[in-house]
Amino acid sequence: MTEARSSTLEPLESLSMTDRVENILREYFTDNAFKPGDSLPNELEMAQKLNVSRNVVREALSRLRMLGMIEARPRRGMIMAQPDLLAGMEKVLNPFLLSQDNLKDIFELRLILEMGISEFLFARKTDKDLDELEAIVNKQKHPTLVSKEEEILFHGKLYEMTGNDTFNRFQTLLMPTFQHVFTGFYDKGVKVEIEHPVTHRDLFLLLKNGTQEDFRKGMYTHLAVYFATIKDR
Amino acid sequence: MTEARSSTLEPLESLSMTDRVENILREYFTDNAFKPGDSLPNELEMAQKLNVSRNVVREALSRLRMLGMIEARPRRGMIMAQPDLLAGMEKVLNPFLLSQDNLKDIFELRLILEMGISEFLFARKTDKDLDELEAIVNKQKHPTLVSKEEEILFHGKLYEMTGNDTFNRFQTLLMPTFQHVFTGFYDKGVKVEIEHPVTHRDLFLLLKNGTQEDFRKGMYTHLAVYFATIKDR
Repeated sequence: MTEARSSTLEPLESLSMTDRVENILREYFTDNAFKPGDSLPNELEMAQKLNVSRNVVREALSRLRMLGMIEARPRRGMIMAQPDLLAGMEKVLNPFLLSQDNLKDIFELRLILEMGISEFLFARKTDKDLDELEAIVNKQKHPTLVSKEEEILFHGKLYEMTGNDTFNRFQTLLMPTFQHVFTGFYDKGVKVEIEHPVTHRDLFLLLKNGTQEDFRKGMYTHLAVYFATIKDR
Repeated sequence: MTEARSSTLEPLESLSMTDRVENILREYFTDNAFKPGDSLPNELEMAQKLNVSRNVVREALSRLRMLGMIEARPRRGMIMAQPDLLAGMEKVLNPFLLSQDNLKDIFELRLILEMGISEFLFARKTDKDLDELEAIVNKQKHPTLVSKEEEILFHGKLYEMTGNDTFNRFQTLLMPTFQHVFTGFYDKGVKVEIEHPVTHRDLFLLLKNGTQEDFRKGMYTHLAVYFATIKDR
């Protein structure tokens, strides 16, 4: 790894030794096309080759283990593994720690994703899916006063119906933060009256009998109370 | 932290001591509403309270430092920090390691996001943005044979125009993986002829003079060659 140099005097990057070893290892794996199941050199060997302490290597490996990139196997030492794409994000979704900008971004990201799923829903919906969605709608106590749990059930089923597990998990992860941010807007008096609200049942019917465009317009109206907040950036 | 128990006999969770300490610390921060800037107890104190070795605490803290949740400050010890929402994901976006399903998911996720940005573009576009977008289009050498760099410039400008930095960074991160996956489809003979292709210039004009719906339909046609791959899941 070569370190970037600029022609002006700038503060040296504040990378710790562990940061640097972590970066070097990830780069080494990529450059050598390591695949899941491949064995890694042992800790001591890496420490010697990199001329750093064993503790530093152990810390860097522990980070990669957290991301699911490597695994310890009994009697086989460490091997490469299939990382979990969202593990890191899941761990930092703490509303006390994220900046206001980050929280607002997450709020909007959910809206963007919600508006973008029509093509996938119409390409992949099955009768079984639609029956399950209808059952969820039938269990709701009230058409417009929807509990948080009912909300998650309905939209969660839509996410599942896209056939994209990563998207499904991503949206589900964003949901609590989305609610957290919206409660903040709501408390600040951002209230919107929708003349002809689109309910979960309406969305179900649009998905069953309508077109992609109908469904998307319905989803926009369904989310209009949230979209009303996005103008003021 | 209480550990979940089930009423049937199942293998004990394969959490290492470091995994457990990491989880306990994150839970402790959330439960006690730690905010960026708050000081943490020192390593030794934590090790004593948790009755684990100092190395285990150091490893767990190193993981949290990687995620940006904590920082070491000279003469102040460790403090909480604003984590980087996408740092973990950025580190594991290695096509050699991710599963085929994950790669396909990422490919589709970009399409979902691309279809969902209309509302944000129309709510936030400025004349300056449109001028910059036009300049990007004017520099393109050919209307339909677009280089990877020209592709990134044009769509990257759209992402920027959403006013959502997290979305912008997220999409930019997904781009190389998207291209990697699509090259795979293309090599397998998935080729689609689009009768009336929508070019970057067409999209620019729709964004300048059209409606949200026009723009979205244009974007769908612009991406039709990619959407042709999603039916066969």
